[in-house]
Amino acid sequence: MFSAETYQNRRKILKKNVSSGVILLLGNIENPINFEHNTYPFRQDSSFLYYVGVREPRLAAVFDIEENLNIVFGDELRLEDLVWKGRQETLREKCSKSGIIEVRPFHLLVDYIQLVLKKNRKVHYLPPYQSHNKILLSQLLDIPIAEIRSSVDLIETVAAQRSVKEAQEIEEIERAIQVSVDMHLLVMQMTKPGMKEYELVNAIQKFAADQCCPLAYPPIVTIHGEILHNQYRQHTIKSGDMILNDSGAETALGYAADLTRTFPVDRSFTVQQKEIYNIVLKAFTSARNMLQPGTRFKDVHLYAAKTLVEGLIELGIMRGDPEEAVQNHVHTLFFQCGLGHLMGLDVHDMEDLGEQYVGYTADEPKDTATFGLKSLRLGKALCPGYVVTIEPGIYIIPDLIDQWKAEKRHESFINYATLERYRNFGGIRIEDDFLITTDSYRLLGPELANTVEEIEGMRS
Amino acid sequence: MFSAETYQNRRKILKKNVSSGVILLLGNIENPINFEHNTYPFRQDSSFLYYVGVREPRLAAVFDIEENLNIVFGDELRLEDLVWKGRQETLREKCSKSGIIEVRPFHLLVDYIQLVLKKNRKVHYLPPYQSHNKILLSQLLDIPIAEIRSSVDLIETVAAQRSVKEAQEIEEIERAIQVSVDMHLLVMQMTKPGMKEYELVNAIQKFAADQCCPLAYPPIVTIHGEILHNQYRQHTIKSGDMILNDSGAETALGYAADLTRTFPVDRSFTVQQKEIYNIVLKAFTSARNMLQPGTRFKDVHLYAAKTLVEGLIELGIMRGDPEEAVQNHVHTLFFQCGLGHLMGLDVHDMEDLGEQYVGYTADEPKDTATFGLKSLRLGKALCPGYVVTIEPGIYIIPDLIDQWKAEKRHESFINYATLERYRNFGGIRIEDDFLITTDSYRLLGPELANTVEEIEGMRS
Repeated sequence: MFSAETYQNRRKILKKNVSSGVILLLGNIENPINFEHNTYPFRQDSSFLYYVGVREPRLAAVFDIEENLNIVFGDELRLEDLVWKGRQETLREKCSKSGIIEVRPFHLLVDYIQLVLKKNRKVHYLPPYQSHNKILLSQLLDIPIAEIRSSVDLIETVAAQRSVKEAQEIEEIERAIQVSVDMHLLVMQMTKPGMKEYELVNAIQKFAADQCCPLAYPPIVTIHGEILHNQYRQHTIKSGDMILNDSGAETALGYAADLTRTFPVDRSFTVQQKEIYNIVLKAFTSARNMLQPGTRFKDVHLYAAKTLVEGLIELGIMRGDPEEAVQNHVHTLFFQCGLGHLMGLDVHDMEDLGEQYVGYTADEPKDTATFGLKSLRLGKALCPGYVVTIEPGIYIIPDLIDQWKAEKRHESFINYATLERYRNFGGIRIEDDFLITTDSYRLLGPELANTVEEIEGMRS
Repeated sequence: MFSAETYQNRRKILKKNVSSGVILLLGNIENPINFEHNTYPFRQDSSFLYYVGVREPRLAAVFDIEENLNIVFGDELRLEDLVWKGRQETLREKCSKSGIIEVRPFHLLVDYIQLVLKKNRKVHYLPPYQSHNKILLSQLLDIPIAEIRSSVDLIETVAAQRSVKEAQEIEEIERAIQVSVDMHLLVMQMTKPGMKEYELVNAIQKFAADQCCPLAYPPIVTIHGEILHNQYRQHTIKSGDMILNDSGAETALGYAADLTRTFPVDRSFTVQQKEIYNIVLKAFTSARNMLQPGTRFKDVHLYAAKTLVEGLIELGIMRGDPEEAVQNHVHTLFFQCGLGHLMGLDVHDMEDLGEQYVGYTADEPKDTATFGLKSLRLGKALCPGYVVTIEPGIYIIPDLIDQWKAEKRHESFINYATLERYRNFGGIRIEDDFLITTDSYRLLGPELANTVEEIEGMRS
């Protein structure tokens, strides 16, 4: 945990900006796997971590603005629980480290909330993403689940606050990146033809766990880098393949890292692999160099897309005017997703709060219809303190190519005949994490090999 | 998956025994960790696995008895999903392997169920344990969550069917035990003073994962074996400690193993450790030897408790008549939990269905009030085909001792002065998995060291 002052200060700003009513933050529970008491590893809700810091299941926090009260609702262990769970710091002790001295039994929460509602005061809450908390909210507020309406005031305040990282949060993120860089080096060093993809994943997981870090998200470690969220890990790794490794650790305090590297299973890239790799690397570098306060991330995304198109034109896979191609979304045949996202306590930071509030503004809302842009999680202007990922890629997806080709889509921009030679190419992505500084950006964590030469150097 | 005939046959028996109405089985979803799309590893619901066998999220199965229909409701991937998830076998193909040819879009399920209800036909469903499925049931049946009432007919039929394992299920369980035995050997071989408990857990997890097996439950690997479900893993392992390792793998088809061994960190047990170990081992052996069809598991539990008491009397920690001590539940100061449970597709098999149906009978219901017995998950008479664990233990819990002593509880049975010498002893448990045969029992899987000599042999 950070200092009690940290949490007190965060709550003070939160309450000031929400200005009135009662803020209700629900913690997470231990989710059942196949029966109630066989549970997944517990992960506290990120906003709860941010304002309360206590990593225990079945808690709720109430910040009552007019009454100037901060209360955690939760239950202390009974002697009988000690038999099963051992003696622990009390909940009261844990909460006091966050500067919260008022702890009440969980069952009293419903009365508290009902009393607030009876007084016609507003209860602010965030959008629930775990079904357990949907049911709980429905009970607390005495409304059907379908009528749960989270508070835009609260969402906007939380998003504004959590988007700008404190120095100590940056340190945590860099700690996560350090572990993740070592995970990536491990994979680059251990990969050999004949191995299964899952062996690499298992090695990553153990390495991170031995540093007391869970993984921030299910890793994508695959010879089929063109499958964007590939979770199938049974392929045998062969000479000639590339491994796309998108994996990151999470620190004990909950901060994420998100790194991707793509490298050849052999000692060096093939000519074709090198050609495409360098196009992605150029897009990565040009995007990174655009990072600064005031720049819209959507523009960075589109600029990276243009750089990719320019490279594909040089290879003869595309043709025509790059600017025009991007305006017509032709690049989405190869780059179907977004260039990056905010990162912090969540790998896609605050995705639970809604991208319209976190990544966009009311004036420039998200394009939710266009293939490609609808997967861009961040569009708005950057501010100092934001932490963003930059992750361009080229993904050759045979099914998608066949569909476009059959529809004769964008034939003036795409040379389908040349593209056919790349049909089984796979995919390449390069990803690092950056802090927006007052006038520019800073790469977070130690640098990890990313030129063709550096990558090949790791493999020989 | 097993053969289509296996699933067809299971469904046939199920429908025959439930006899009328519509059986609705809900599959599991991918549960969110910290936002909707960052999810825990998927685990299909065990009853769904048993009758349908398809390991995909967001499915429901309907077995309409009068209409003689088996339908899976679920959605095929769209081209856009292929971009993210890659090309896969279709849902229709997956279901056909289970002998189900009727696959309908998920959104049609609610109409199907509503039509059944309109005809005043009964919809049978199992108790939901994931909140997502509570909400779904509430929507499908158009009733509040508080009014969800699962079908006792269905529960009893499923429990009866799943309790008696088929030969191919036994093979799967033995596969899980084989991996688990190797996990235990690994831990016995790698443990050294100075290590952290979590390093052992991480090694187990990686070993199992490399055999394509997840862990069947969060492992308990601790120097504080007296904490029954200890999940704190940060202790440093010291000379003089014992490691209690309660861990088991799950096969790809979902079958669990559940093994416990306790061993010294040094090359040999101390005299005190050996004394207690041999008491637990004797209880283990005597319980195992009682296993046969017709014997009530509650009697095996109480017999094991009596054996523990006899040993503690020999040590001078207890005194008086062992039988009388057990009748008065005095053994629960040292053996606070149950002797074992059913095991199969769940490590605590079918715990989601309710212990009153799975482990007990209406005539001999569970004692839910008495400390000790209320933690015994299985009480009823054993039948051929049951798979049970036997896991006696002695747990020296200072907080519990202090409470009993302060209350002068059972002073005629407990020598609190002698007990004081064992105050920081910790805990020992020994656990194996057994099949009830037509006239006796069979240890499942390969034998794993469990005498003092065998254990010490592993450590030197």
